[in-house]
Amino acid sequence: MDFKQQLDKYVDKINEYLDRCITEKELPEKPLYSAMKYSIMAGGKRLRPVLSLAVCDMLDGNVEEVLPFACAVEMIHTYSLIHDDLPAMDNDDFRRGRPTNHKVYGEALAILAGDGLLNLAFETMLESIIKSGDKEQAARAAGVIATASGSKGMISGQVIDLESEGKQVDTDILNRMHRFKTGALIKAPVVSAAILCKAEADDIEKLDSFAENLGLAFQIKDDILDVEGNTEKLGKKVGSDADNNKSTYVSLYGLERSKEILSDVTKKAIASLEKFGEKAVFLKSLADYLLVREN
Amino acid sequence: MDFKQQLDKYVDKINEYLDRCITEKELPEKPLYSAMKYSIMAGGKRLRPVLSLAVCDMLDGNVEEVLPFACAVEMIHTYSLIHDDLPAMDNDDFRRGRPTNHKVYGEALAILAGDGLLNLAFETMLESIIKSGDKEQAARAAGVIATASGSKGMISGQVIDLESEGKQVDTDILNRMHRFKTGALIKAPVVSAAILCKAEADDIEKLDSFAENLGLAFQIKDDILDVEGNTEKLGKKVGSDADNNKSTYVSLYGLERSKEILSDVTKKAIASLEKFGEKAVFLKSLADYLLVREN
Repeated sequence: MDFKQQLDKYVDKINEYLDRCITEKELPEKPLYSAMKYSIMAGGKRLRPVLSLAVCDMLDGNVEEVLPFACAVEMIHTYSLIHDDLPAMDNDDFRRGRPTNHKVYGEALAILAGDGLLNLAFETMLESIIKSGDKEQAARAAGVIATASGSKGMISGQVIDLESEGKQVDTDILNRMHRFKTGALIKAPVVSAAILCKAEADDIEKLDSFAENLGLAFQIKDDILDVEGNTEKLGKKVGSDADNNKSTYVSLYGLERSKEILSDVTKKAIASLEKFGEKAVFLKSLADYLLVREN
Repeated sequence: MDFKQQLDKYVDKINEYLDRCITEKELPEKPLYSAMKYSIMAGGKRLRPVLSLAVCDMLDGNVEEVLPFACAVEMIHTYSLIHDDLPAMDNDDFRRGRPTNHKVYGEALAILAGDGLLNLAFETMLESIIKSGDKEQAARAAGVIATASGSKGMISGQVIDLESEGKQVDTDILNRMHRFKTGALIKAPVVSAAILCKAEADDIEKLDSFAENLGLAFQIKDDILDVEGNTEKLGKKVGSDADNNKSTYVSLYGLERSKEILSDVTKKAIASLEKFGEKAVFLKSLADYLLVREN
């Protein structure tokens, strides 16, 4: 199976699981489920859960055991986008080429749909822990995800982003912001999957370094796309970072230097996978694929 | 020790634990911690975690084991108040006699502080599961709380509340709304504590019935206080339900009949505790105390 076929297979598996997690309910609470489903089934790259499944396959783990945790990360990622798009936050009207959640369902329901998805992520993981043959391991995997998504991780990144609005910040703050805001939730699906597959400490360390660099590459690529991307392919407006006077890799290092850094960190990410040999071919291709992505 | 002394002792224990959970951080993410701390340490009755600790004492359980779960419920309750007070939701300026979170920190930070508290509740419980001597039992207790706070519980209640805004609904919808919106998160600390104390199925059933009626009583009392309460003692405006044309027990049954129902369900709650004899004295007093509360 080539890279693209394998990627599609992972994405299908993830979409099918997520679709099953949110069953449409009857009135009176029907609108909540519609709003949650609207955003979770809006497509997207599914990068985070794909990382979990690929790590699992590489380590010969049990995909059915990893899938709920992988999809929980996607629920957390999706809730963060819904809240991030709100008028009080980034005030975005479009996401993945469709109106944002609050544009369709109103602000109140969008806030609650976000809350519902965050909560559902933990409901899903707790159910898996209860059923797991190794509950400590499952709880540790969930704990890694919880720390990454909370106030010691992603949410702090969003606060730094808020506080930096309209001003140019230095590289220390920019790096801290991205490590928290994007990096934490790219590392968590990699490390939690490794824990669930009983990886040894040295393997976890290598995967941690892979994910660290991949997360950084992902963010730099995002900053570059905001400058030279295509609005139609991106599904959102190009140039919004500059419009909002946001600090980005491009605003701090310039476009050419940013591309060099992107290429370097991608190489570093791939190099961290050396010891896994042939088994790492999908993850290496994924890193290359993200380098040339157009959305 | 009399009832009031015991209550204060529980509240002190809870406040001390919650205070330790949110350590002030340095810049740049400092504002997030300040906003989270502002609402979690705003006082309040601490009814939900007090219920957990009292159930634990009644069943001769280990309070240290129950405390993190009890406080997780309080974090969830607090996040729901922060989001509920937002302009897009109830648009309230005061809570517990102080400006609401978004009035002090702005809407964006209030949304993130709420998200942070919900996430922290699960971080706290997962940490306890990992350390627990009976991980399945601890995960089941956390699962009960997760279901109660999510889209199958509290959040659905808030959506029904939203959807019912400005119209008078029937008693079926009103009861469904309250069972989800308030009842679920009063039942969860009782049932989860019972699970953590290895209560037998019959005891859990009795406690479930106690909490069901207590939650209903709590809501009816809230509706009555909104009509004949004292703004200063309540710490928020009286009469806002009528102003917003909200369906309440008072609007559906009238004040006198609502007081009768309140007295009946409180008696029912207390009757569910019969089999626990003398050991239930605190919980029975708590039900009576909530009946005459002024805020």
